[in-house]
Amino acid sequence: MAYETWGELNAERSNAILIFAGLSPSAHAASSAEDPSDGWWEDMIGPGLPLDSDQFHIICVNSLGSCFGSTGPASIDPATGEMYRLGFPVLTLEDVAEAAYQVVCKLGIEQLHTVIGCSMGGMSGLAYCVNHPGAARNFISISSATRAEPFSIAVRSLQREIIRSDPKWNSGNYDVDDPPLIGQRLARKLGMMTYRSPEEWIQRFGRQRTTATDETVNDPFSIRFSVEAYLENHANKFSGGFDPNCYLYLSRASDLFDLAEHGGSLESGFKRLDLQRALVIGVTTDILFPLRQQQELAAGLAAVVLDTRLIELDCIRGHDSFLVDMDAFRPVICDFFEGDCD
Amino acid sequence: MAYETWGELNAERSNAILIFAGLSPSAHAASSAEDPSDGWWEDMIGPGLPLDSDQFHIICVNSLGSCFGSTGPASIDPATGEMYRLGFPVLTLEDVAEAAYQVVCKLGIEQLHTVIGCSMGGMSGLAYCVNHPGAARNFISISSATRAEPFSIAVRSLQREIIRSDPKWNSGNYDVDDPPLIGQRLARKLGMMTYRSPEEWIQRFGRQRTTATDETVNDPFSIRFSVEAYLENHANKFSGGFDPNCYLYLSRASDLFDLAEHGGSLESGFKRLDLQRALVIGVTTDILFPLRQQQELAAGLAAVVLDTRLIELDCIRGHDSFLVDMDAFRPVICDFFEGDCD
Repeated sequence: MAYETWGELNAERSNAILIFAGLSPSAHAASSAEDPSDGWWEDMIGPGLPLDSDQFHIICVNSLGSCFGSTGPASIDPATGEMYRLGFPVLTLEDVAEAAYQVVCKLGIEQLHTVIGCSMGGMSGLAYCVNHPGAARNFISISSATRAEPFSIAVRSLQREIIRSDPKWNSGNYDVDDPPLIGQRLARKLGMMTYRSPEEWIQRFGRQRTTATDETVNDPFSIRFSVEAYLENHANKFSGGFDPNCYLYLSRASDLFDLAEHGGSLESGFKRLDLQRALVIGVTTDILFPLRQQQELAAGLAAVVLDTRLIELDCIRGHDSFLVDMDAFRPVICDFFEGDCD
Repeated sequence: MAYETWGELNAERSNAILIFAGLSPSAHAASSAEDPSDGWWEDMIGPGLPLDSDQFHIICVNSLGSCFGSTGPASIDPATGEMYRLGFPVLTLEDVAEAAYQVVCKLGIEQLHTVIGCSMGGMSGLAYCVNHPGAARNFISISSATRAEPFSIAVRSLQREIIRSDPKWNSGNYDVDDPPLIGQRLARKLGMMTYRSPEEWIQRFGRQRTTATDETVNDPFSIRFSVEAYLENHANKFSGGFDPNCYLYLSRASDLFDLAEHGGSLESGFKRLDLQRALVIGVTTDILFPLRQQQELAAGLAAVVLDTRLIELDCIRGHDSFLVDMDAFRPVICDFFEGDCD
């Protein structure tokens, strides 16, 4: 398990915050002395920031099954000396949570101050809290849910099928130096369509055209609209960095998680929690984890956690808002930790 | 140009209705003596139905560029004896409209009673009315728009790229007996995700599982959820029937259409219309042509057509509702034609 930390654990070991990331980010949520490059939540974690490293010991784990240091399908199976690939067992978010729990135990932390999970990480966080009642005092869910709706399952199923349909995927036995990039790029574009919002793209791109180049002017299907160029740029940036099999496993794990499987119903799942405070943050324009799911999650938490808050943010950038609309999220997180952020 | 008709043209030639279909359907909108198989709008067209063939002469054209009888990229170029393929010129919905206009003229009809367009066909219908003011007295737009929003462009762009990324597409020179079916199937699944609605799938599938078969039980990425099986069935039904190059051309034409290009602004586009009545029908759960676009279209029409109505239908089945939720659409269409439908 790869993880990074910011800030010191106090003598009482009572100030630790555990962060579960979404499907694709690494444990590098913020810069540090060891790695000064920007992290995926750079503006959220640090001295004087909402997750204040002067006050808290903040831990971010790379999910089990991912490819940024934690064991996953791209890791070497010591029994064979080869990558696990599809020999890796079916992965669940309960596994992801359990692996993180072991990290926390090894760090000598009996009870976390707070578990925070973003997107898929919110479900990993629920799994953590439901399987280890009392192991965290507080829980924050950001743009997540009790379980995926069929539309989100369909999106991810199609992303996986696109990757698996690339001949270079080769039933999971791709050449690591020549991975199924075409499939990964297409899957990423589909992802971006659900991570952002139609409303944002109307404001940002409208029907703006790109300039045709010599190369494209005679190709009727080349990029013509700015929104197409935007997706192309995002596909180019992302696709080389993520192992395709790891992506498939984590994507399927996101489909499979269902809080209702903990006890037979959502209600019984919620009843297994033992939390002091809960905060659910959702975004009005989120397609992937829509507002109705934030409301369902908050209502379920409120039935068992006296101090539960639901914050509906009117951000235009959809599901990804927690990564790109920091000005909206920072005050909410800051307030939860009774910080003094400006 | 392939077209079908139902009902007789009256002596005054004043009772003709022209239907523009969406991207994929043929001219076979309803059964007839010549072809008794069900059409794509079987419950809408016929004696005593909202488009009453006892009163009206109803014409449905297969769009120029399609592959069901009208000339398109899959047609044989008489100059070479080979299919046009990507040698077919860039197609616009103005071309689609103009080809239909020629059909109507050949039939000896100077003025249509009504032009009806569904989805892409609504934009073809707008092109018809804006380029031939007075050629139709009335216009009905169903789940269409003045032009595509960037989200819809992104969806179609990705569908095209998926097909073009299938090695069997072969830069448009695919073997007609071995077309890029994998790409077409994936593109169709993406289509279905935008033709229906997340709300429908919650009601219809929820998180219902399929039964694992011997074949699938050891494949972690095989179909596990009913929504995945549903998409698989739709992909299987559709993909063999539509020529991939025709699909690409019509899909791109849907991106390109913009009423504002008729005169430099939407306002000037609308001003070119010469209509007596207009009806805009939209559906609350439509992702592809959302309600805000219905409202924009109706507002623009209302500025130039005194008798303009907007009907917002609260159907759950999204963009496809006009094909599958006949009980909601029939009364609205019937009312427009002052019919007596039960």
